[in-house]
Amino acid sequence: MQLFYANDISGTIAAFSLEESGHCLRVLRMRKGDSLVFTNGNGSFFEGIITGDDPSAMTVTITGVREDEGKRHYSLHMAISPLKNEDRLEWFIEKAVEIGIDEITPLICSRTEKKRIRKERLASIILSAMKQSVKAYLPVLNEPVLFSEMIQGGFDGRKLIATCDPEVQRVAISNAFAPAENILILAGPEGDFTLEEVRIAMSEGFVPVHLGRSRLRTETAGVAACCSVYLANI
Amino acid sequence: MQLFYANDISGTIAAFSLEESGHCLRVLRMRKGDSLVFTNGNGSFFEGIITGDDPSAMTVTITGVREDEGKRHYSLHMAISPLKNEDRLEWFIEKAVEIGIDEITPLICSRTEKKRIRKERLASIILSAMKQSVKAYLPVLNEPVLFSEMIQGGFDGRKLIATCDPEVQRVAISNAFAPAENILILAGPEGDFTLEEVRIAMSEGFVPVHLGRSRLRTETAGVAACCSVYLANI
Repeated sequence: MQLFYANDISGTIAAFSLEESGHCLRVLRMRKGDSLVFTNGNGSFFEGIITGDDPSAMTVTITGVREDEGKRHYSLHMAISPLKNEDRLEWFIEKAVEIGIDEITPLICSRTEKKRIRKERLASIILSAMKQSVKAYLPVLNEPVLFSEMIQGGFDGRKLIATCDPEVQRVAISNAFAPAENILILAGPEGDFTLEEVRIAMSEGFVPVHLGRSRLRTETAGVAACCSVYLANI
Repeated sequence: MQLFYANDISGTIAAFSLEESGHCLRVLRMRKGDSLVFTNGNGSFFEGIITGDDPSAMTVTITGVREDEGKRHYSLHMAISPLKNEDRLEWFIEKAVEIGIDEITPLICSRTEKKRIRKERLASIILSAMKQSVKAYLPVLNEPVLFSEMIQGGFDGRKLIATCDPEVQRVAISNAFAPAENILILAGPEGDFTLEEVRIAMSEGFVPVHLGRSRLRTETAGVAACCSVYLANI
């Protein structure tokens, strides 16, 4: 099923972005009168008919709506360091959205080498992955946040920090939370968090977790962490 | 740690392949007398000193050996359909090796569109991922196998077939096996297995499993399946 996205809805009319309009009318060659399904990224799937075919600002008249039945009974927020290789962070984001994530925060740690992200590009990857996996909730992409700010920000749920440091007493991630819990997981850069960072996080209530004996790249660790939470809730 | 690979060992002398020799001597500019660590892909890590510096056929004199302490107490064999987009199968293979897999078989199903794989390229991805994740066991890459042959081949362990078909009574993958079990998982092409294929597999003892409500691409489903087995064993 081809799923579109529009969150600018007034009454029964949905206005589509430049990008979505162009994709629909120019690339897929859809026309006025054609029906389609779109989501507002906020839990609803809409059926509608194209009534305005301006390829830079398509409008659709809504004919039906249904709520997403697949809403998760937990939320997952991952704060992950940007990586030297942007492709790898992008890949993590695509897979995390497919598997299931609610919020992503680029996390600037002591050992983060590349502190900038291309937010528009990452947002577009999130949108594509949401549509491709036919989800009705658009994950939130936050602005990059310093590690010190992140750990002091309030979070109502289980707070985990993934680290490879054997000096830290860690529990296996799958034993660190229960199904249906809301979870925040911190994942560090290529060189891991510093021991100091792990200790500060622990003093703020974060539980250090490990992901087993395999030496995983940061983005693989991120996906494995998402899978752990996802699989515990299926 | 930089890990190299050589499995041609006679007494205390290891002979390196053209590719590994070039990487070591030309790219990394190592020299006669330098020490390095390599694995035979069969469970051992060796320390040695470069004693022959022919960049197409390096030789190393072994000075020490230790067995990999990280040997898994389970084995995982995944038979997965080649995908239309080769990058996505390659990505699956890289991640599966990082996370932990013993054997990969390209599986030719009714709906497999692309029946050929580039075996040398996939083998080189497996080798790189093994070295990058500092493992001492080289996963086996089999020749492509027809679905009908695969399900009739003997396997001493738990046999699972992952399918999205809601007509099939399926169990969640995480409930379909126990820790320490040897596992064979079949994963289908983009359009899934046919119902017929699932039924035939069931008659051969395969248990149909699902990977939750998220609609996952084949390669993501493959990685999630690997994670499920890996996480159940950490």
